[in-house]
Amino acid sequence: LNRLLEAQPTTIFTVMSALARQHDAVNLGQGFPDTEGPHDMVRVAADALLDGQNQYAPLTGLPELRQAVADSNARFQGLTINPDSEVIVTSGATEALAISLMALIEPGDEVVLIEPLYDTYLPMVRQLGGVPKLVRLEHPDWTLPLDALANAFSTRTKAILLNTPMNPTGKVFTQEELTVIAGLLKQYDAYAVCDEVYEHLTFGAPHISLMALPDMRERCIRIGSAGKSFSLTGWKVGYVTAPAPLAAVIAKAHQNLVFATAPNLQRAVAYGLNKDTHYFQGLAADLAHKRTILSDGLRSVGLEVLPCHGSYFVMADISPLAQGEDDMAFAQRLTREAGVTTIPASAFYDASNGAPPIHLLRFAFCKQEAVLQEAIGRIRAWR
Amino acid sequence: LNRLLEAQPTTIFTVMSALARQHDAVNLGQGFPDTEGPHDMVRVAADALLDGQNQYAPLTGLPELRQAVADSNARFQGLTINPDSEVIVTSGATEALAISLMALIEPGDEVVLIEPLYDTYLPMVRQLGGVPKLVRLEHPDWTLPLDALANAFSTRTKAILLNTPMNPTGKVFTQEELTVIAGLLKQYDAYAVCDEVYEHLTFGAPHISLMALPDMRERCIRIGSAGKSFSLTGWKVGYVTAPAPLAAVIAKAHQNLVFATAPNLQRAVAYGLNKDTHYFQGLAADLAHKRTILSDGLRSVGLEVLPCHGSYFVMADISPLAQGEDDMAFAQRLTREAGVTTIPASAFYDASNGAPPIHLLRFAFCKQEAVLQEAIGRIRAWR
Ligand SMILES: CSCCC(=O)C(=O)O
Ligand SMILES: CSCCC(=O)C(=O)O
Repeated sequence: LNRLLEAQPTTIFTVMSALARQHDAVNLGQGFPDTEGPHDMVRVAADALLDGQNQYAPLTGLPELRQAVADSNARFQGLTINPDSEVIVTSGATEALAISLMALIEPGDEVVLIEPLYDTYLPMVRQLGGVPKLVRLEHPDWTLPLDALANAFSTRTKAILLNTPMNPTGKVFTQEELTVIAGLLKQYDAYAVCDEVYEHLTFGAPHISLMALPDMRERCIRIGSAGKSFSLTGWKVGYVTAPAPLAAVIAKAHQNLVFATAPNLQRAVAYGLNKDTHYFQGLAADLAHKRTILSDGLRSVGLEVLPCHGSYFVMADISPLAQGEDDMAFAQRLTREAGVTTIPASAFYDASNGAPPIHLLRFAFCKQEAVLQEAIGRIRAWR
Repeated sequence: LNRLLEAQPTTIFTVMSALARQHDAVNLGQGFPDTEGPHDMVRVAADALLDGQNQYAPLTGLPELRQAVADSNARFQGLTINPDSEVIVTSGATEALAISLMALIEPGDEVVLIEPLYDTYLPMVRQLGGVPKLVRLEHPDWTLPLDALANAFSTRTKAILLNTPMNPTGKVFTQEELTVIAGLLKQYDAYAVCDEVYEHLTFGAPHISLMALPDMRERCIRIGSAGKSFSLTGWKVGYVTAPAPLAAVIAKAHQNLVFATAPNLQRAVAYGLNKDTHYFQGLAADLAHKRTILSDGLRSVGLEVLPCHGSYFVMADISPLAQGEDDMAFAQRLTREAGVTTIPASAFYDASNGAPPIHLLRFAFCKQEAVLQEAIGRIRAWR
């Protein structure tokens, strides 16, 4: 069997969710909201099922959804996108990421990745024969070390994989940082795969797409997620925006891997993307509030909470409470003893890389206030 | 960019469907029904959307769908399958095929493929670094040449990719043929990826899964498709059945590529798989009837029609009507001049392989009777 896949662990999200169920713990691990997305969107999806268009959608997506994605690029990032040749609808951002990397990479190509990183990035790059070049953000402030970043690039660099707003750190890359990255892409004639699934979930800091920077239009692949933008993670509808020559190759990878996505869900997502700006602001405000509740709560029980300006997640330093154990052991004990499940941050670092011990846990705050309060209460009672 | 993908043509299904629209042709090209699947299933899918379970489904699928897939394996093939460790729900059979091959293949592994073949097989095998070994069925009877088959196997063979009932030929492999294949798999210690998406669409000939043959349980990956079994091709819900050690690796590939599939569609497919045998018999009888209408009609306009015992498709020899042109040129002319779209069979042969000229067109008969009659009438008027 394929040895790379055989050696890959089951995703930490599945592992920790199973542990949470086993111990009846409050699950702040896997990142999904515990309330439903907009009811009107769900209603559109249900109506679309019933009106008799349940055969294959076009390979790159329904025209109305591609148009809505193009419009959203214009509205939020000032980008002019051709909906017919520059948008591809996918079965979630995970597929979008896979096909984007497939379109870019050949065996031996180097890919710059920023640690801590989402757990499919490294296996996906390695499976394609890509060579990961890791740059580690410095905590507690999640500073991007510019020298290390520059050193990660070489004439063999094919792409950087950039996630902003960033999972698991909650970092939102600044205009200055993006400008440095843009300079490196030009210098080394490289591409960027921009995982922007949390584009609408920022708290104060504006989300800037690398694609919107000067000269970056032709070098960037933007990935968005209806699951994240509409709190409907189960739908697995994502979208890729890329310059036409790149989009054509990404579509070929999509053709081989999945081919198409359910038309009724596509119609509902098109409807959702056309919602007024108020909806997106409301979503961000709601998450910002929850971030504050969780962060304040974690501080009140003695944890050091790291800065978070976007995404569903915040990191906290467990050193004050850990008893010499690593983050994985601590996360397991927190589930078992306190009844609160999180994700140990070491899951987001390259295990093959001799990473220094990480004393951080990732907490998801895309949960109801009462759930967040319950988690804090349980930790307070336990510690 | 990735050169293999760059060089790959857009799928013939998309190309011919676009041509059909341009010329307002009757589209017997891309294989999808022009009527909707069971209304009760669609209703279950709509209701499931509205009852508030729209976050991530489990990685390998909802328990109720995995159970239904296991039950269906028992009912139709006498197989005992563990729903917890041997079933993976996918975003369509295309994804199922991709992750099955990913789990098996490492660069340099040989994969036996049977021509004519579905258009993602070759690119997918090549993208994974696999080495295709092609065995060509002999028309007009779609005979499997057993010597050529045996010669295609070697100690480097990792797997055979077997599609029965077969697209594009309509062939249903016999017990005898499957027994020969099983012998080769044992002799060379190889696996089979069994694309059985048309399992319920056979016309007289019984569908036998290779997995149900003696000693084949541990060597086979079975792929099924709700799209094909319930005439809901847009839903893109597929399922993989595999022995637990293999299923575990396939799940890793799924984790990286797509992760999960919409829960409401999964619930509806579980409901569908639990339908009584009458439903599946009715579906097959309806398609058999349509196959006969189309075959008789094509014969009545002077084409030689090849045998077809299953699937949505039948092949016809165009030699009597072609004017020295190849099948692609003829298919284009048939669209332009007669207003009938088909798929030229050369799309199902390895283009890099110096294939001899193919004088066949594939006709899809999963269409309403009136549509089939209209197509025949148009060809009659035109020829
Ligand atoms: C695909 S399950 C993981 C969801 C997620 O994005 C996260 O928890 O980081
Ligand atoms: C995925 S589009 C092609 C549908 C099909 O199976 C075919 O026409 O062969």
